Amino acid sequence: MATGSEGLPLPEIFVVSAAELAAVLQNALGGPHMVQIEGEGARRLRAIEPLDRAGPQAISFLANPRYRSLLAATRAGAVILAPAARDALPAGCTALLTADPYHAFARLTQWWAARTRPAPAPGVHPTAVVDPTARLGVGVSIGALAVIEAGAEIGANAVIGAQCHIGRQARIGARTRLAPQVVVGFDCVIGADGLLHSGVVIGADGFGLAPTKQGYVKIEQLGAVRIGDAVEIGANTCIDRGALGDTVIGDGVKLDNLIQIAHNVQLGEHTAMAGCSAIAGSTVVGARCTIGGGAGVLGHLRIADDVHVSAQSTVSRSLDTPGQYTGFFPLDDNRSWEKNAVTLRQLHRLRERVRALEARLGEPASDPSPTVSATPTAPPAAPDAS
Amino acid sequence: MATGSEGLPLPEIFVVSAAELAAVLQNALGGPHMVQIEGEGARRLRAIEPLDRAGPQAISFLANPRYRSLLAATRAGAVILAPAARDALPAGCTALLTADPYHAFARLTQWWAARTRPAPAPGVHPTAVVDPTARLGVGVSIGALAVIEAGAEIGANAVIGAQCHIGRQARIGARTRLAPQVVVGFDCVIGADGLLHSGVVIGADGFGLAPTKQGYVKIEQLGAVRIGDAVEIGANTCIDRGALGDTVIGDGVKLDNLIQIAHNVQLGEHTAMAGCSAIAGSTVVGARCTIGGGAGVLGHLRIADDVHVSAQSTVSRSLDTPGQYTGFFPLDDNRSWEKNAVTLRQLHRLRERVRALEARLGEPASDPSPTVSATPTAPPAAPDAS
Amino acid sequence: MATGSEGLPLPEIFVVSAAELAAVLQNALGGPHMVQIEGEGARRLRAIEPLDRAGPQAISFLANPRYRSLLAATRAGAVILAPAARDALPAGCTALLTADPYHAFARLTQWWAARTRPAPAPGVHPTAVVDPTARLGVGVSIGALAVIEAGAEIGANAVIGAQCHIGRQARIGARTRLAPQVVVGFDCVIGADGLLHSGVVIGADGFGLAPTKQGYVKIEQLGAVRIGDAVEIGANTCIDRGALGDTVIGDGVKLDNLIQIAHNVQLGEHTAMAGCSAIAGSTVVGARCTIGGGAGVLGHLRIADDVHVSAQSTVSRSLDTPGQYTGFFPLDDNRSWEKNAVTLRQLHRLRERVRALEARLGEPASDPSPTVSATPTAPPAAPDAS
Repeated sequence: MATGSEGLPLPEIFVVSAAELAAVLQNALGGPHMVQIEGEGARRLRAIEPLDRAGPQAISFLANPRYRSLLAATRAGAVILAPAARDALPAGCTALLTADPYHAFARLTQWWAARTRPAPAPGVHPTAVVDPTARLGVGVSIGALAVIEAGAEIGANAVIGAQCHIGRQARIGARTRLAPQVVVGFDCVIGADGLLHSGVVIGADGFGLAPTKQGYVKIEQLGAVRIGDAVEIGANTCIDRGALGDTVIGDGVKLDNLIQIAHNVQLGEHTAMAGCSAIAGSTVVGARCTIGGGAGVLGHLRIADDVHVSAQSTVSRSLDTPGQYTGFFPLDDNRSWEKNAVTLRQLHRLRERVRALEARLGEPASDPSPTVSATPTAPPAAPDAS
Repeated sequence: MATGSEGLPLPEIFVVSAAELAAVLQNALGGPHMVQIEGEGARRLRAIEPLDRAGPQAISFLANPRYRSLLAATRAGAVILAPAARDALPAGCTALLTADPYHAFARLTQWWAARTRPAPAPGVHPTAVVDPTARLGVGVSIGALAVIEAGAEIGANAVIGAQCHIGRQARIGARTRLAPQVVVGFDCVIGADGLLHSGVVIGADGFGLAPTKQGYVKIEQLGAVRIGDAVEIGANTCIDRGALGDTVIGDGVKLDNLIQIAHNVQLGEHTAMAGCSAIAGSTVVGARCTIGGGAGVLGHLRIADDVHVSAQSTVSRSLDTPGQYTGFFPLDDNRSWEKNAVTLRQLHRLRERVRALEARLGEPASDPSPTVSATPTAPPAAPDAS
Repeated sequence: MATGSEGLPLPEIFVVSAAELAAVLQNALGGPHMVQIEGEGARRLRAIEPLDRAGPQAISFLANPRYRSLLAATRAGAVILAPAARDALPAGCTALLTADPYHAFARLTQWWAARTRPAPAPGVHPTAVVDPTARLGVGVSIGALAVIEAGAEIGANAVIGAQCHIGRQARIGARTRLAPQVVVGFDCVIGADGLLHSGVVIGADGFGLAPTKQGYVKIEQLGAVRIGDAVEIGANTCIDRGALGDTVIGDGVKLDNLIQIAHNVQLGEHTAMAGCSAIAGSTVVGARCTIGGGAGVLGHLRIADDVHVSAQSTVSRSLDTPGQYTGFFPLDDNRSWEKNAVTLRQLHRLRERVRALEARLGEPASDPSPTVSATPTAPPAAPDAS
């Protein structure tokens, strides 16, 4: 099987000139942003392609200065880039100059998608099962074999994909789109302009258990999930309903695939989490944070605004200060790792040996008792309310 | 969007007095447990709320002594708490005294849920696809667009949610409830009184492959999954069928979301696993264990009863002794982590340097060769049977 | 609940002799492989069971020499094993001798499954929703309540399970089987002879976002997913569509459950990944690699052919050399871990103290500045194209 990936061609009917695209981007970016064109405005463009694989009928972009070296050799017909990089562009390549080329590229992909993808047909598919007490806004599209339970409310122009399940009294905001096979539990609320991918489960029970001598007794999860506007949620991600109050996801939050958000978590506005990360119960995460892929944040913590957690790291204490935090074991060849791992389990002893050597040599005390503790983790079934 | 979360109100028709609730809890907890009321028994209650946010018409609880300081300032109308904490309660607040307030709170949530949530209607939804050879017990509820395959058996009063799929010859125990979009594979057996959340997949094939020079050859997974009574399984969690024998989940096991249980794993009774944790193939976990969120247990191991694995830890060897085990890299600011991580990769060398210094100074040998090895991990596609 | 697991019996009508099975395996393994029978060829066999639990009417196998000690005590009627192990077999036990017993066992399970599992009935279930422009090959089976969108193409003898969703213009190869509730997004392509388990989501959007002062702006994911032949994908695993070009999965790749493959990843032929592992965006993984359970590979990296990553390890840099790589924190009792973790956060300082002691004693410089850096992780929402 060939492994090349060639970018996306535009159907012939949508082929545009560089000048037309510049106008499209200017309009999409809005007032304060300027898009200036330099070079041949009449050049015909029919594909978006990466710099190193673009042909003369493709438009490409340079956002990350790290890739600036690719500019000189590109065969792209047009490139979106910042004015500072303009000089590196080959002769004959049309430049679309703008202060934030990555933002402009994002708008270009949106324009492209709108032209190449059919819009879902409004209306209720005849095989959908819609309770007569559900309320559907104007322009709503309900896919094949979807189920809308009693009292649910679907906002104007929202799209409910095939085979979705919307629980009773749940509310979906205007223009929000659900891919096929999304589950939204009863009483849960999703804002406007959202996008939920297949396999997402909103409002399953949080993991609340009271340990007794006869085993665990279930704590019914009486809260729900409230999700703000412009939230995107990746495939197979789960957001649990709260134990008493709600689990709350702020406006503009972006979640990747296979993420776990436990009960009563609060995520601040415009926080983004990469795939396979997780937030344990009752933790409050600030605004504009990024949580790397596979990272885990333990329960009952507070994470400040603008905290960035590296991939695969474990957050076991509250973080009051913005910044980048990291904690994963550095990879090594297996043999070296084994040697270092064994030694690591004796690290405390090694420090005492160094201290003994220092004492023997009359070194001044350079090793006060550590004051920062690596907080141990709570057992997983710990009480999560009060 | 507001982020406050306010607890759950009871509909007006269900408003109760503190004395009525005390009787409810006494009855739910059963014989040996006593619930004593002190203060105004006639006080009307219409919400369950956390101590720090409760109003005068709310009942709250204190389970974790850590939160005892919240008692003095609470405005709750009634509080469930242990006799030892009674003195800290403000005047005018009704006390429901019981030895295990968290257990009582759990029973309260169950009573609350039963009053506020409509019971699923018994019967088969007309859009469900039920094979004529399937056997349905009395009082069974089959949701819209569910599929029940040939020979499947659904126990009395069980609830199969909308859009579920029950494979041929699968058996679901009495009173067990499946949320929408659960998949139970052929031949798999689930006990009574269980609860499976949306997106759960029971009985997909285990990951069994024979490596050959022409690539992997599939080992058909000929076993099934057997799940005991009173088991709860969180959203999007997977339990694979066994290669030859079955994967076995004991009575009272509680699994959170996005958990992976590989083929031929055995989980002992009343073991609980938090979200995103995983058990690799053929590992046997004892009873009453807790596995923290994101933790991973490698394959072909034996974990004793009453072992507690902290969140995000990796279990790479069998554990014969009860206790709490931990192993994750402590979080640090990124710059400090980088410095320590680089040094960590030279830790073995550092130990040798300390040993050399000790030798030079004539210290007695304090550093025998380590005898505990950090067991390396098996390759993922290793044989899992014999 | 009993926890024993007893292997799978063959229905009476399929009971076979050891000699018949030898012929079946010889035929399945093909030309160059020899299966020799020693002992009673007429012995009747009606179950496959592990060596230590097999009875006289069961066939078992020995693949891993580690389990050779089980041979002497086995009560199995027949055993598949290598000629070198033949002498350890008890008298009266029939031997099926072959150079690769694990491969032979795999073929045996396939033969067994084909005899004991009903084949899906060809044809379209009357409740399925199939767009009239979809093209179905000969012998195709479409399950109950499945949805096949416009322009989709299902290859000959493919099986689409109940409640699956095949997006518009998607293509499923000949003989590929989808378990119930699989989602394949529009434009995605799956090769022949594949197997996708329940909850798999192919072609959800990759996690592409342009950060701006007003929050993230979505980068529409204009590529698709292309999957080769003979690929198996475990339950609830996600493979995202590419941003510009496609995400590409090579022939013979095997993925376990709950795996995340981000946009524009390329996986080489015959690479296998265990459960809960993940590959971040644009990373290229070579052929015949194995990625252990829970392991994570960061984005924009290149992993050579024949690299083996241990379970729970983090790959934060490109790997040019084949071999086994590991990086997870070794488990310890919680108290020891706490002590070592605190010390670990001062490791860099500890090294400086050792260096000071060495200088004081006039040791030669043994500690050059490290040249291998532990690459920090990129923030999760970093640009993934150029």
